[in-house]
Amino acid sequence: MKLLNQYPNIQKEMDIVQELLIKTVQSRQPLVKKTAVEAISSKGKRLRPLLVILSAMLGEYDSKTILPLAAAIELIHTATLVHDDIIDESKLRRGRESIQSQWGKDVAVFTGDFLLCKAFFMISQNGKGNQKDFSRFIQAIKIICEGEIQQYDFRYKTNITIRQYLKRIAAKTAILFSVSCYIGALQAKCSKKIIHALARYGMSFGMAFQITDDVLDLTGEISLLGKPVHTDLLQGIYTLPIIYTLQHSRYSERLKKLLQKEEHGQQYLSEIYDLVNQSGGVEYSKQLAQKYLIRAEQAIRILPDCDSKKIMIQLLEMILDRTM
Amino acid sequence: MKLLNQYPNIQKEMDIVQELLIKTVQSRQPLVKKTAVEAISSKGKRLRPLLVILSAMLGEYDSKTILPLAAAIELIHTATLVHDDIIDESKLRRGRESIQSQWGKDVAVFTGDFLLCKAFFMISQNGKGNQKDFSRFIQAIKIICEGEIQQYDFRYKTNITIRQYLKRIAAKTAILFSVSCYIGALQAKCSKKIIHALARYGMSFGMAFQITDDVLDLTGEISLLGKPVHTDLLQGIYTLPIIYTLQHSRYSERLKKLLQKEEHGQQYLSEIYDLVNQSGGVEYSKQLAQKYLIRAEQAIRILPDCDSKKIMIQLLEMILDRTM
Repeated sequence: MKLLNQYPNIQKEMDIVQELLIKTVQSRQPLVKKTAVEAISSKGKRLRPLLVILSAMLGEYDSKTILPLAAAIELIHTATLVHDDIIDESKLRRGRESIQSQWGKDVAVFTGDFLLCKAFFMISQNGKGNQKDFSRFIQAIKIICEGEIQQYDFRYKTNITIRQYLKRIAAKTAILFSVSCYIGALQAKCSKKIIHALARYGMSFGMAFQITDDVLDLTGEISLLGKPVHTDLLQGIYTLPIIYTLQHSRYSERLKKLLQKEEHGQQYLSEIYDLVNQSGGVEYSKQLAQKYLIRAEQAIRILPDCDSKKIMIQLLEMILDRTM
Repeated sequence: MKLLNQYPNIQKEMDIVQELLIKTVQSRQPLVKKTAVEAISSKGKRLRPLLVILSAMLGEYDSKTILPLAAAIELIHTATLVHDDIIDESKLRRGRESIQSQWGKDVAVFTGDFLLCKAFFMISQNGKGNQKDFSRFIQAIKIICEGEIQQYDFRYKTNITIRQYLKRIAAKTAILFSVSCYIGALQAKCSKKIIHALARYGMSFGMAFQITDDVLDLTGEISLLGKPVHTDLLQGIYTLPIIYTLQHSRYSERLKKLLQKEEHGQQYLSEIYDLVNQSGGVEYSKQLAQKYLIRAEQAIRILPDCDSKKIMIQLLEMILDRTM
């Protein structure tokens, strides 16, 4: 990440995380090795490990315990991405062909499981505070799974509420950002106050991140996202801008009719986009994302001035401009 | 299992495992709860929890620590089954419609992950010997994943060797049986000698179990298996009887030609079966399964006479007659 050019000490830690990731996913089975290495080699932003490191730097930072945790969180995230791609039969992920598209569902399911195991193994090998970390991690993954299944359960339902949407993205995205901050701070023995501030930051950060992602999936700039656009819509997953429009008396009926159409060409997508835009759905979503960004910034105001705090604020700005 | 009618104390423990399973997979998310409960409610034989309990009974048996471990192993097994069904797009599992066939891949992927998390959580909550158990479990799952991916990698390869097949079934099946015995005995503080005897029993038991399963998949008795037959063959997964025949100079070429055919009706399957039978492939496989059963029996000869030992021997006989 460009941002880290100014912080060579943090970039160095991130480089070690990358090495750890590559080292961890080795397997004697050649295809496993290939797919696992591929899954973690793709150009992810590594936001979760970064948040672990930044949070830990606010306490007694010990790279020997922190970096494996940071890597483990990235492995968990990668595992859920690999599994996610099976579901939406995604052909691209992080700008590359997805595991499932290249090797089939078979390999993707077990590559994901393999990565998950490796993550658990790293955490279990990690001496300090084992038990507590562990439960947090597992809770987080459990919530992610519930979020993903809930997302499926709400497919094609035009009566989904904004509240239900927010709960869903909290589960499927924000919780892991929050846990990243929490675990880093906990390991580094930060005060309770700081731990909770960071966990709140992670949560709001994650909410803003996902809403922005959902807006971009609709407005559709493939070059920015590194993955196909409109995938949510085409799978019946209605995100905030759509849900907002569905609740807007003036646009609701027209949108419902469009969503029922079987034909899904470019024309169809543009029509939907126009409607959502007119209703103010895009604008509303952007504003809500901004609210979360402000909330995230407020959460970490109590932190002392330091590089971690500076970078955390810069990360918020990057979501706002979506330059990452 | 009928066998346990004569051992009400063990049946009681197994009933508690069942209750624990149901209790563990609860979720606030209604669909998650439904699919997870369904996955563990199907009529599995619960062989792995039984082996954990029987093994632990050879030492200082403490149901408070043993039963959660037994349940956790069953959860891991169930998770891999759910994921397995996505891969082979299986419509039946344990005589019921599979999760993926009922709810789609989406739900199946994350139901499997959810079950895996719950298993890890149970293990992590389990006080004694935490770390060591844990690593064993994770190693086992990692090996299962590698086995499954290897299976995929060898699809449609007619030059697969018997050795490669044995390695594959060791990874995908036998290892979890072995770990079940090992963990039970370890927790109950059995002597090293007994722990290793039990682990060897589990390994040979698992090998015999899988070879028998593979033979039945070919000879095709759906009522016994509770799952569709010939699925392996139709997916290009060649099991022992096929591999044996492929290496038989007299039948090899004819079988290869048959396997290349695109038409897969009943006639085709019968032709293959006849060829494999004539070559002695079915007989060879049955004999090899029997060798493993003998090996399993030999492994536990050193055990003192007790219910555990008796049941373990009865289990071997049940595989031989395949009455379970």
